[in-house]
Amino acid sequence: MSNSLLPSLALVAVWPAFAAAKEPAVPQVSLAVHGGIAAEKRELNDELRDTLRAELRRALQAGQAALDKPGGGSLDAVEATIRVLEDSPHFNAGRGAVFTHEGRNELDASIMEGKDKRAGAVASVTILKNPITAARAVMERSKHVLLVGRGAEVFATKAGLEIVDPAYFWTERRWRDIERIWKKEAEGDKKAAALIKTEPWSTVGAVALDRAGNLAAGTSTGGMTNKMFGRVGDSPIIGAGTYADNKSCAVSATGHGEYFIRYAVAHDIAALVEYKKLPIEEAASTVILGKLKPAGGEGGVIALDAHGNLAMPYNAVGMYRGYVTRVGKIVVLLHEQ
Amino acid sequence: MSNSLLPSLALVAVWPAFAAAKEPAVPQVSLAVHGGIAAEKRELNDELRDTLRAELRRALQAGQAALDKPGGGSLDAVEATIRVLEDSPHFNAGRGAVFTHEGRNELDASIMEGKDKRAGAVASVTILKNPITAARAVMERSKHVLLVGRGAEVFATKAGLEIVDPAYFWTERRWRDIERIWKKEAEGDKKAAALIKTEPWSTVGAVALDRAGNLAAGTSTGGMTNKMFGRVGDSPIIGAGTYADNKSCAVSATGHGEYFIRYAVAHDIAALVEYKKLPIEEAASTVILGKLKPAGGEGGVIALDAHGNLAMPYNAVGMYRGYVTRVGKIVVLLHEQ
Repeated sequence: MSNSLLPSLALVAVWPAFAAAKEPAVPQVSLAVHGGIAAEKRELNDELRDTLRAELRRALQAGQAALDKPGGGSLDAVEATIRVLEDSPHFNAGRGAVFTHEGRNELDASIMEGKDKRAGAVASVTILKNPITAARAVMERSKHVLLVGRGAEVFATKAGLEIVDPAYFWTERRWRDIERIWKKEAEGDKKAAALIKTEPWSTVGAVALDRAGNLAAGTSTGGMTNKMFGRVGDSPIIGAGTYADNKSCAVSATGHGEYFIRYAVAHDIAALVEYKKLPIEEAASTVILGKLKPAGGEGGVIALDAHGNLAMPYNAVGMYRGYVTRVGKIVVLLHEQ
Repeated sequence: MSNSLLPSLALVAVWPAFAAAKEPAVPQVSLAVHGGIAAEKRELNDELRDTLRAELRRALQAGQAALDKPGGGSLDAVEATIRVLEDSPHFNAGRGAVFTHEGRNELDASIMEGKDKRAGAVASVTILKNPITAARAVMERSKHVLLVGRGAEVFATKAGLEIVDPAYFWTERRWRDIERIWKKEAEGDKKAAALIKTEPWSTVGAVALDRAGNLAAGTSTGGMTNKMFGRVGDSPIIGAGTYADNKSCAVSATGHGEYFIRYAVAHDIAALVEYKKLPIEEAASTVILGKLKPAGGEGGVIALDAHGNLAMPYNAVGMYRGYVTRVGKIVVLLHEQ
């Protein structure tokens, strides 16, 4: 059995155990969530910290309830978990999405199940309340995998999904961020504008393993603050931000999307598990710490294998994250390892 | 040395040698091209067949000229090769793009280089004459990897790339295809409409290896005839339709894009080469014949490793394709194996 919540010895220097002290035996996990790469500690006051913890816990509870329902599967759990964070104004997905350079909110999401490797995704959508539900609808109710822009919106509208006015995605905190950047840019200080990074890579995602042994993964994001019109990151890209295969693992990523696309991060972790027979924690940290970090690609993943072993490596100050063990214990972590 | 143009014994039943009889030694290849999965033989007259051969040869000559130039690299070769096929009305990319369900031409393309694994892509663009050049501009002149729709068009326009009226992409042959489908749909015969498949998965792509040992790959497409508004296939998806890594290989795919995304085909072939140390022809046929075919995913790839070994497996009636050997010999193939 692999000690998936403990680092391998070779990695101990860069990747300290984040839960080792808390649980003597290695817990088997049924569900995990991430809320993106954390802001610097000093940027969070106690109130916001508590709110983030509470929201992550609420998301895990919703996901676990979906898993526990008769007939409930890992796809239901992933969707339910992510919907809670999409509906929260505190994460960069759904309601709390960051603004593009043009002051819009363009959302992306993807979902995949590990049994038949079916997948669905939407990108650059502006009126869909829950992009993760739209991604699932693309998977289950269209012949396609990826729909973008207006086409995705027309499909989701016809499918009866919840449509909102783009103003729904306006939140004061995100608007202040983009205004600060615009101000610096107007002053001609592009360097200062580029340095304004509050939660630069905050995306949400979930992975789950159900009683039938089926894995699923999903990811949802508002993208990068101040991103170029039409820029799509890794979140809606199957193989980059999301992957699930019962033969290996389920992965959801958060980070500097361009690197995650170029390194096909989610699929690469699955390939290391399947082809090199690496334990999940070694596969995930090989990619996040061994490949992305030297290349300058900030981010992290949650990765769950078919036996319930979980890895959550990241190469940044922290990652908002949590998991539910097979016996129902919920653990939520922000900066602590 | 691997006999990359010969099938492994285990695969001989399903994948007969396609060039074995022509060249006694296994040729090392510097450049390869594909023009998509072939139409049924009976759908091509001699004139069209000759035209396709001539265009593929012309594309290879343009690519090889780019490789032979002082300072010319594999990226230049891939771009030059693909531009010839984009400018031809006979392939489903650029000028000859098929029509969407709404009667539009929405183009996708991607490019990647194997040294630093940089990549660029555009999707759902309607006014860019050469999407492959736009993909390269995204890679070299933006901080992003994937730009879609109007955002990609604005970027390409500012970058000074060639813009055309959408009518440029109107060709009589493709228009007749979509008209036939609309007619059947109007008659309420969706089944018959779905059966109208002329060159259903025809996309173009190239892979190259330059004297410095750098691999590159690129893919360009007009997508599926009658595709849903906003549907994006595998061609602009790094890891699905295109991948390049000097550590393993360069891959460009053509086929039923949804399967190529779900199976992360291009990256999976690279992973089999890097992690399982499979020879390129075994890696490529494992994915195309061993995984996609049983799942119902029609298509093929061209895959070139860092030693110049080429594989071109496909699980369909034929694949328009060709290559240039290190000694400058050009080979073009349609249905023959």
